[in-house]
Amino acid sequence: MIKSVEWQNNLVKMIDQTKIPHIFEIVDIKTSEQMYTAIKDMIVRGAPAIGISGAHGVSLGALELQNETDKNVFLDKLHKICEYLKSSRPTAVNLAWAVDKQFELAKTSTSQTVDGVIKELIENGIYLENEDIEINKKMGDYGAEVVPKGATILTHCNAGALATVGYGTALGVVRSAFAKDKTIKVFADETRPRQQGARLTTFELVQDGIDTTLITDGMSGYFMSQGMIDFVVVGADRIASNGDTANKIGTYNLAIVAKEHNVPFYIAAPLSTIDISIASGKQIPIEERDHQEVTHINGERVCAEGVHIINPGFDVTPAKYIAGIITEKGILRAPFEESIKEAFSK
Amino acid sequence: MIKSVEWQNNLVKMIDQTKIPHIFEIVDIKTSEQMYTAIKDMIVRGAPAIGISGAHGVSLGALELQNETDKNVFLDKLHKICEYLKSSRPTAVNLAWAVDKQFELAKTSTSQTVDGVIKELIENGIYLENEDIEINKKMGDYGAEVVPKGATILTHCNAGALATVGYGTALGVVRSAFAKDKTIKVFADETRPRQQGARLTTFELVQDGIDTTLITDGMSGYFMSQGMIDFVVVGADRIASNGDTANKIGTYNLAIVAKEHNVPFYIAAPLSTIDISIASGKQIPIEERDHQEVTHINGERVCAEGVHIINPGFDVTPAKYIAGIITEKGILRAPFEESIKEAFSK
Repeated sequence: MIKSVEWQNNLVKMIDQTKIPHIFEIVDIKTSEQMYTAIKDMIVRGAPAIGISGAHGVSLGALELQNETDKNVFLDKLHKICEYLKSSRPTAVNLAWAVDKQFELAKTSTSQTVDGVIKELIENGIYLENEDIEINKKMGDYGAEVVPKGATILTHCNAGALATVGYGTALGVVRSAFAKDKTIKVFADETRPRQQGARLTTFELVQDGIDTTLITDGMSGYFMSQGMIDFVVVGADRIASNGDTANKIGTYNLAIVAKEHNVPFYIAAPLSTIDISIASGKQIPIEERDHQEVTHINGERVCAEGVHIINPGFDVTPAKYIAGIITEKGILRAPFEESIKEAFSK
Repeated sequence: MIKSVEWQNNLVKMIDQTKIPHIFEIVDIKTSEQMYTAIKDMIVRGAPAIGISGAHGVSLGALELQNETDKNVFLDKLHKICEYLKSSRPTAVNLAWAVDKQFELAKTSTSQTVDGVIKELIENGIYLENEDIEINKKMGDYGAEVVPKGATILTHCNAGALATVGYGTALGVVRSAFAKDKTIKVFADETRPRQQGARLTTFELVQDGIDTTLITDGMSGYFMSQGMIDFVVVGADRIASNGDTANKIGTYNLAIVAKEHNVPFYIAAPLSTIDISIASGKQIPIEERDHQEVTHINGERVCAEGVHIINPGFDVTPAKYIAGIITEKGILRAPFEESIKEAFSK
């Protein structure tokens, strides 16, 4: 399995996701600044993948400080790098979760030397990297249990191997379902403005030999009204403690349309995506992205000059639209306040 | 006012809508075959505009038969041209309505000569052309009465001056509302796959000095959840006698999302868009369009090879989602079977 993000010999190998499906290119990320840019410019994207990237970013930042002899000065400087890395994308909680986890490790390390702390950070980054794939496989297996036999599954954006270290969250569920039942089919929303569904999801699924149909974001209701969609599963960028879920813009429309047609709408996300510090989706910051993502496609302007743009990268789907949250500890059901609390106490 | 379609000296002047917003070009349509291609390739689009184009297409076809001395042979050949023109796009009823109207005129004409019939067809085409603008202004005025003061109006696709001969149906409502209240604002869905919202609607509205924000099709729910949309109005390609409405793909999703947020969802369309011969939207044929509209944007492939495509050009919004149908005879309300019947008997 090729990993979307992989620590190798003091640098990070990363698939450049801006070039898929045309070019498959691995880039080297050697500094914390390069990692910040890679996350911000979406060379790497997907909440779990940017979480692991953030963890490795802390390790790269620590390596930049390896000549620091005073451990307190080292920690001060590392803290600044951590805040800088976390600012690259505000909505996904996995990034903050992983960066904070690394910094906590550095702060509480019993190593007497900076080199010792750096070694621990690198090892922990690699541990999280490998754990991500294991978690996805567990989620996939739980999710596959609720996918109807022969189902056509609709998904939005890319919550696949590329959005994680490997295997995927929503597409992990698809992969596990397909492993048991080769008649499973997928419809993929193209996901404007950045078209991750068209560019990345079709790329992953066609490679795996899964029957995949690409549709535009406005078509889901039409196909549901024709009885052609049986199941919806998407990823998440941040889930509040009541189950409200921030995910790629367009997810909320899809959830409403699915509910109207009684098509079950599931979220697949690891527990690290759940932010138990916030009560509801209202507290999730929504990233406002570059206006050119809307005004231009493939470098060509597609609208008149003088038009205004608002480009929220995410929306929040209230918990009432969600049939279940598929996690590595099983499928959480409403009332989510309770099932989420229980999952964290396991 | 520049007309999107205009009869001039035995040919049709037409704005090439595939080139907007980059190039504003008028093309000459000189034969019925050129008219078929112009409609099929969407040089002209929008249900009312292709209706008038079809009417003029019949006149062009009749001119091609002007050396025919036998009126019966002339009518036989003209009938074939009419069927050919109607086959260029199956969903919009205005095309069939206008072409049939012209053929009926030719058949029932009391003119003794073919030249006399041709003259009547051309005159009737010009009459329909001018009538279209008058009808739109009436619709606009009726519609403006239900637009709240200071409203932000969301629209899908382009039901504007370009979709009609001039002024527009849904955008006619916007124009009439704006004439009374300069604080009216518009959000325009880009409308994938062909982006008529981005390319055409923003072009029209910015020219008119109306505050316009372009959004992608998946964003409507987000903005409604923020209380930023007060009113939705779209055009129609065919309305069944129970009020079910076929319009550009993505309209149905928008209608569901609007209903979920209690935002009133209106259709603006002339009575010629209502097909009283069909009982419900289930009988409306949905045009399947070229797959490249989905797989390619601006000539660049945006998805993996090997992916399947289904590209319905339209969807059907059931009447229960529709607050009212704005016509030239007033706003029709539920139960639509009755209000539509009444409008036709006026």
